[in-house]
Amino acid sequence: MIIQLKEDVTSKEKEQIISKAEALSFHITEVKTQEHIYLVGVGKGDIDPRSLGHMKGIQDLHRVSDDYKLVSRKWRINPTQIDLGNQIKIGEGEFTIMSGPCSIESEEQIVAIIDHLKQNNIKIMRGGVFKPRSSPYSFRGNGIDGLKTWYKYAKEAGIKIISEVMQVSQIEPMYDYVDIYQVGARNTQNFNLLDELGKVDKPVLIKRGISGTVDELLYSAEYVFSAGNERLMLCERGIRTYERSSRNTLDINAIPILKEKSHLPVIADPSHAIGIRRHVPSVALACVIAGADGIIYESHYSPEEALSDGQQTLNFKESNQLINQMRATFDLRKSFGN
Amino acid sequence: MIIQLKEDVTSKEKEQIISKAEALSFHITEVKTQEHIYLVGVGKGDIDPRSLGHMKGIQDLHRVSDDYKLVSRKWRINPTQIDLGNQIKIGEGEFTIMSGPCSIESEEQIVAIIDHLKQNNIKIMRGGVFKPRSSPYSFRGNGIDGLKTWYKYAKEAGIKIISEVMQVSQIEPMYDYVDIYQVGARNTQNFNLLDELGKVDKPVLIKRGISGTVDELLYSAEYVFSAGNERLMLCERGIRTYERSSRNTLDINAIPILKEKSHLPVIADPSHAIGIRRHVPSVALACVIAGADGIIYESHYSPEEALSDGQQTLNFKESNQLINQMRATFDLRKSFGN
Amino acid sequence: MIIQLKEDVTSKEKEQIISKAEALSFHITEVKTQEHIYLVGVGKGDIDPRSLGHMKGIQDLHRVSDDYKLVSRKWRINPTQIDLGNQIKIGEGEFTIMSGPCSIESEEQIVAIIDHLKQNNIKIMRGGVFKPRSSPYSFRGNGIDGLKTWYKYAKEAGIKIISEVMQVSQIEPMYDYVDIYQVGARNTQNFNLLDELGKVDKPVLIKRGISGTVDELLYSAEYVFSAGNERLMLCERGIRTYERSSRNTLDINAIPILKEKSHLPVIADPSHAIGIRRHVPSVALACVIAGADGIIYESHYSPEEALSDGQQTLNFKESNQLINQMRATFDLRKSFGN
Amino acid sequence: MIIQLKEDVTSKEKEQIISKAEALSFHITEVKTQEHIYLVGVGKGDIDPRSLGHMKGIQDLHRVSDDYKLVSRKWRINPTQIDLGNQIKIGEGEFTIMSGPCSIESEEQIVAIIDHLKQNNIKIMRGGVFKPRSSPYSFRGNGIDGLKTWYKYAKEAGIKIISEVMQVSQIEPMYDYVDIYQVGARNTQNFNLLDELGKVDKPVLIKRGISGTVDELLYSAEYVFSAGNERLMLCERGIRTYERSSRNTLDINAIPILKEKSHLPVIADPSHAIGIRRHVPSVALACVIAGADGIIYESHYSPEEALSDGQQTLNFKESNQLINQMRATFDLRKSFGN
Repeated sequence: MIIQLKEDVTSKEKEQIISKAEALSFHITEVKTQEHIYLVGVGKGDIDPRSLGHMKGIQDLHRVSDDYKLVSRKWRINPTQIDLGNQIKIGEGEFTIMSGPCSIESEEQIVAIIDHLKQNNIKIMRGGVFKPRSSPYSFRGNGIDGLKTWYKYAKEAGIKIISEVMQVSQIEPMYDYVDIYQVGARNTQNFNLLDELGKVDKPVLIKRGISGTVDELLYSAEYVFSAGNERLMLCERGIRTYERSSRNTLDINAIPILKEKSHLPVIADPSHAIGIRRHVPSVALACVIAGADGIIYESHYSPEEALSDGQQTLNFKESNQLINQMRATFDLRKSFGN
Repeated sequence: MIIQLKEDVTSKEKEQIISKAEALSFHITEVKTQEHIYLVGVGKGDIDPRSLGHMKGIQDLHRVSDDYKLVSRKWRINPTQIDLGNQIKIGEGEFTIMSGPCSIESEEQIVAIIDHLKQNNIKIMRGGVFKPRSSPYSFRGNGIDGLKTWYKYAKEAGIKIISEVMQVSQIEPMYDYVDIYQVGARNTQNFNLLDELGKVDKPVLIKRGISGTVDELLYSAEYVFSAGNERLMLCERGIRTYERSSRNTLDINAIPILKEKSHLPVIADPSHAIGIRRHVPSVALACVIAGADGIIYESHYSPEEALSDGQQTLNFKESNQLINQMRATFDLRKSFGN
Repeated sequence: MIIQLKEDVTSKEKEQIISKAEALSFHITEVKTQEHIYLVGVGKGDIDPRSLGHMKGIQDLHRVSDDYKLVSRKWRINPTQIDLGNQIKIGEGEFTIMSGPCSIESEEQIVAIIDHLKQNNIKIMRGGVFKPRSSPYSFRGNGIDGLKTWYKYAKEAGIKIISEVMQVSQIEPMYDYVDIYQVGARNTQNFNLLDELGKVDKPVLIKRGISGTVDELLYSAEYVFSAGNERLMLCERGIRTYERSSRNTLDINAIPILKEKSHLPVIADPSHAIGIRRHVPSVALACVIAGADGIIYESHYSPEEALSDGQQTLNFKESNQLINQMRATFDLRKSFGN
Repeated sequence: MIIQLKEDVTSKEKEQIISKAEALSFHITEVKTQEHIYLVGVGKGDIDPRSLGHMKGIQDLHRVSDDYKLVSRKWRINPTQIDLGNQIKIGEGEFTIMSGPCSIESEEQIVAIIDHLKQNNIKIMRGGVFKPRSSPYSFRGNGIDGLKTWYKYAKEAGIKIISEVMQVSQIEPMYDYVDIYQVGARNTQNFNLLDELGKVDKPVLIKRGISGTVDELLYSAEYVFSAGNERLMLCERGIRTYERSSRNTLDINAIPILKEKSHLPVIADPSHAIGIRRHVPSVALACVIAGADGIIYESHYSPEEALSDGQQTLNFKESNQLINQMRATFDLRKSFGN
């Protein structure tokens, strides 16, 4: 059960609502996001909305049978749209492309990629400055300094930045230089990080865990939402299976399923999913037609020289072609009314 | 190594070629299909084509580094097209739709579905008369009698039949009534069945195993091919993973990968892959844009009454819409040159 | 629901029982095994045993909530013991070792291994004469002739034979030369083969599918049982997962779970499960202490020269040691009362 | 390559060694643990030890072909033993039992469990005060206050504490009250947490990720080791597979494999692996005989009332029996020389 409270609810009204709900055997968590105030009730029984709905201070009351609540579409039927400013919006009828290198490497690289994005009218650039690596001896990214350099050029060009945050202590130093925080597949269940991202007033993209279920991804989003941040995106990036002919198995089923279960935008990452450069476009287009609100993929002026993930990164010629094909595919999907 | 022999090769020439190849440390298997004669050489070393290529009786010689040989695209670079007669062709630029019920149930059902297919200009009907079921107490299909009834109506309507064969002893009784034999996911590594289907002069569609790898599917096709039958199709139908929000996980990556590795047509089965009726179209369209040569899906005039798989079967209204959308999506793909 | 009928039940009595059960909304399958006659009832409702139990011709009536019925321990509470004759018994307190090569290769090999088994007082020899191989170009076993040679020596030595049957047409030619038919992991859901093995009066060992669930293994056994053969064993041999440091992942959990769910003996195959020779003993001992009724593993006088599976096959010195350790471990387990 | 430096190596000597190694195309990372100083060299080429080994300041030089280095047994051939003081040692011939509740709940609970452990001469108690939970609305543990209460009673009783740390900011507040930090399955690749635990002078137990590979677990240990902490344990706790009859699939193969690949002690967690109370003992004993250096399992005076994981927690009677059986099984294993 989700009770959305009026903005001007009084403490006394709120207490009365909580008492009444607890008397109906609900465990109540008060959630105050940057936009609204909710009481989230978890309980086994069903509820007759009339028994509570008339109380003062209540804006709206919804029964939600899913175990996740605030991210469920059973409550918020219309899809969520995230506004990044400058006319850049994600979700609810928009199709968003995010592109860029695995790692931010140099000014030369940043400039070249921003130029590529601008030529294609792409407004969001991806790139890593903190890189999670299996081996402690691998390149771990250029850190905050890399991010600052990137930010300088991106701001000039009107390009927004999405970049991975790996730990709580990086949130604040990154804050001035990113537009979207990305939670990587190894951190999808780093609950402390999720809690802290709930307090930030910037959007968050949450990748599905390496072997995470659809429901676990929704629960992770519930963590951030219930900690205060409603501006979330979900990202399918392939799951770990026994199959060895590709890096991960992109779960194409998850795209329509997530769109139905949640009101949040769904982004797909074909680069990490298949891990084979020449097949990235086929998988990207599949995600577009299946209902993704956006695609995030890796591009580089010279994938052969990239410090990481070169084998799954498109060069600019390939990227240009993919962008055109994705847009045409999205237009076809819209014509289907999907 | 694949050595294609001339049609008029003499026994003596063939023996000489075999001796020479064995002397070069290849293990040679002679393969006589309904169309050609080959010597397939398996060996660790590399070979200089000039050392053999000049010998009498040789049409062509190809080095193939894959462990599967005759189904590899490293040997036969152009995709294979399968001609079913009556202008019905599969693969190499054609887009093929196969639709119909999980199980053949009754004349009324057959007539209704054939009518639906004709209205949509679909030429191949799927349906099961031998049903593999986990429990011995479940409905196991209407058998050969069901197939004969089906055949009567299909022939009149000019519709081709694809149906699953579960064991060697069914091949011959089914022969007069099917146009394509289907090997189900539980029989992908039933090597005796594959061997016997190699001797039949009708096309075979091989489904990927429930947890089969891409390579195992290619090996299974190699069994049928090397036993004599070149008219094969591969079918991606979802794999078993830990994810529980859908029936199986459709491996969308496998579509471009199979198309690259093999010259055989690739068909996708979205119905078994996702197992949720309202999401079948999204997944079907994803497979089309990703490169599938055809889609096989379940339809029924009243899925709610179907004896099996009703939860993943489209009704005719849904099916009509999907057919139109698949064709539009295929046209878009062609416009991309993919 | 399982109704065991009296041996002297009359047709009329049986019909009356069936009518009554169908009136209670059960779908009834009549099962006549080599030992008893049953009516297996599948239905959604519960049943009050008194409503049927008094009828003439009924020996016993059991409610079984599992979807598999005759192999369930909810019906037959005492474990099943299989008697191979000559004091050789499997299950219910016995600990059975089956050992031998992956493939039967030569008389010399047969003689050496039989000698090894006799020295260790092992009564059952494993070996393949029909080998399922991913590639059609690999060695496929020495066939019936290999089996006949093996049989000659085994019979002299008082050793029983277990060997894999791959297809229906092999059942009859193998019949005179095997003591236990083995169904391999690729055939666990070859339902026609299972049906036919139900008609044979020799025991059957069913391996779990390559990615088969515990429940699917029980259903496969239900096929054989309901087709007439009660003398069955289940075999855990490792499942396919994402992990690549071993050949398969032995599901040790499955051993106590299968023992609880079913009355059938449970055998474990550590050789195929881990696939690494030096680690086979650790895994074998784990299966013994966890409750397995027997272990089947690969041994050879010279694993390095074996035609197949040499990397997971023990030599005689290793095998001697493992046998002693397994017996000591089984004794310890018995002392625990497990 | 691992170069262990002498304790009294001079800066100049170290620089010369690094120069020489870099000239041989190795990428060198200097590692200063709480016990030794190393230079870890990652490179593609092989090395002739004589080309470096004679240099001043070098204690020892080892070629290590694995990608992980310091945790590899190719370098440190003898198993590592961890000394907790008070004669409590883990690894290298010791068998260690760690038992206790999922969550620390109350003083009454703590006292009862400590009493149970003392009666069985168990020296290490497990328990969670920070609980990772899929849902943000679930009980998340009693936090530092719970830990302090626990510590008070444990210290009096001479019992050591192992408890999960979920984030960097908890390391310091927990420090005075834990003897072993546990890294949970969702944090195995939380690289920042691993880095920080490298700086702590208390042992760390690292659980395998929910779908982590054996190699990824070793890499995670390499993170902690290379950040300074050599006192590490690895823990097998079951992996995520398609099988649904148990909570996770305990990878019994991983136990001998980890023991061979690494010199670190290997602990097994049967409770989370199978998740079914009555089967925990079978799996625990399997892990003991397969080579585990210790077992960590859940016990509670009244599992039915536990706030979390009750379905997999043993009561004291069951726990008493398991302890005796594990010790007898370990004795048997020792008698085998394993």
